[in-house]
Amino acid sequence: MAGVIDQRLAELGIELPRAAAPAANYVPFVVSGKHVFVAGQIPVESGNIMYRGRLGDGMTVDDGYQAARLCALNIIAQVREACGGNLDRVVRCVKLGGFVTSTPDFTDQPKVLNGASDLMIEVFDEKGRHARFAVGAPALPLGVAVEVDAVFEIA
Amino acid sequence: MAGVIDQRLAELGIELPRAAAPAANYVPFVVSGKHVFVAGQIPVESGNIMYRGRLGDGMTVDDGYQAARLCALNIIAQVREACGGNLDRVVRCVKLGGFVTSTPDFTDQPKVLNGASDLMIEVFDEKGRHARFAVGAPALPLGVAVEVDAVFEIA
Amino acid sequence: MAGVIDQRLAELGIELPRAAAPAANYVPFVVSGKHVFVAGQIPVESGNIMYRGRLGDGMTVDDGYQAARLCALNIIAQVREACGGNLDRVVRCVKLGGFVTSTPDFTDQPKVLNGASDLMIEVFDEKGRHARFAVGAPALPLGVAVEVDAVFEIA
Repeated sequence: MAGVIDQRLAELGIELPRAAAPAANYVPFVVSGKHVFVAGQIPVESGNIMYRGRLGDGMTVDDGYQAARLCALNIIAQVREACGGNLDRVVRCVKLGGFVTSTPDFTDQPKVLNGASDLMIEVFDEKGRHARFAVGAPALPLGVAVEVDAVFEIA
Repeated sequence: MAGVIDQRLAELGIELPRAAAPAANYVPFVVSGKHVFVAGQIPVESGNIMYRGRLGDGMTVDDGYQAARLCALNIIAQVREACGGNLDRVVRCVKLGGFVTSTPDFTDQPKVLNGASDLMIEVFDEKGRHARFAVGAPALPLGVAVEVDAVFEIA
Repeated sequence: MAGVIDQRLAELGIELPRAAAPAANYVPFVVSGKHVFVAGQIPVESGNIMYRGRLGDGMTVDDGYQAARLCALNIIAQVREACGGNLDRVVRCVKLGGFVTSTPDFTDQPKVLNGASDLMIEVFDEKGRHARFAVGAPALPLGVAVEVDAVFEIA
């Protein structure tokens, strides 16, 4: 029987990606006590790197928003793995850490990260309300525009 | 009756700002277990964005120090909210994460972040001694010079 | 009697540095509950700052890898202090946060951070498998190429 969160994902028309393998010698999440620490996720879809580029230099805020949303989808996919497939075990999305590839003149990192924040609230409702930071970076792995890591509390 | 920390704030002549609303779709803090995760705070005072600029390009280290101190005041204001108004519940300032808008040549991020670290120790004494990182960023939200997030342990 | 991890360090020919004093007004680690939060460590060896430079501008990925490994050695030295000298108390390296001084064109931050990740697994085996992020920064304290912070779970 599908859980509450699985049903909401279906209603939203969201199909979670497979939990992506890490790009290097580490693991995509660690469960420690009641917390899941999710490694920095990048905008990967079906194994393809998406949204390469730099905000403030040809990439629009809306592109950045979509990139952040895709990072967040991958975060939820990792949390599902951490929960043994049952997303109803999520107590809270505690924190997101967002890095946005930015020119020195681009200062709308919050609007970009909203792509991740909005998805958390669509999917988890009140349990999706998180603390976060949103900062610029000169460059991110593989040239992507956004990288987001996360801490979740699970039951 | 004023608590111990409230008295110290009064002795230091520090009036905490109101806990600032977040700049986007997230919450300013999450309490998870014994920890408070505080969202990245920027130098806001009475609703006005202060200390816009870049270290290494016209902004002095002392300006950066004051910007970091103001971020830390906003962090303490959020922690007070998280503690239901009673800062004596603070067990420890566990960690600060500091981002400083920097030119590629500016490498005094630690001196800037000391503005936040010094305040934590003034206010919380031994309980204010924290781990931290201090790194450069090409750009931060709204053009501010410093953003700081935090983890506190509370009772 | 030497512990299991101390024996492994000896077999690997690794001598841990002394736990370095922080560069400013904070502490190198905080123990909160079962977690150790380690402040951002830079490539310091016997008190000397090593690996100053920028990836993508004259510094090779292998130099960056060695810088990250040295940061990780300093992290382990801090964790040993936090454990009262007994590294067998380490339950898990939970998370590494990696910042790499990068030109806007350098996107191999993961290969650099592998220097830290590989060491954790050499030393702690399965307990060394961690979540992490790896991002670029325009500049880091004292001009170093890499800064890494960490969260460990201890018993």
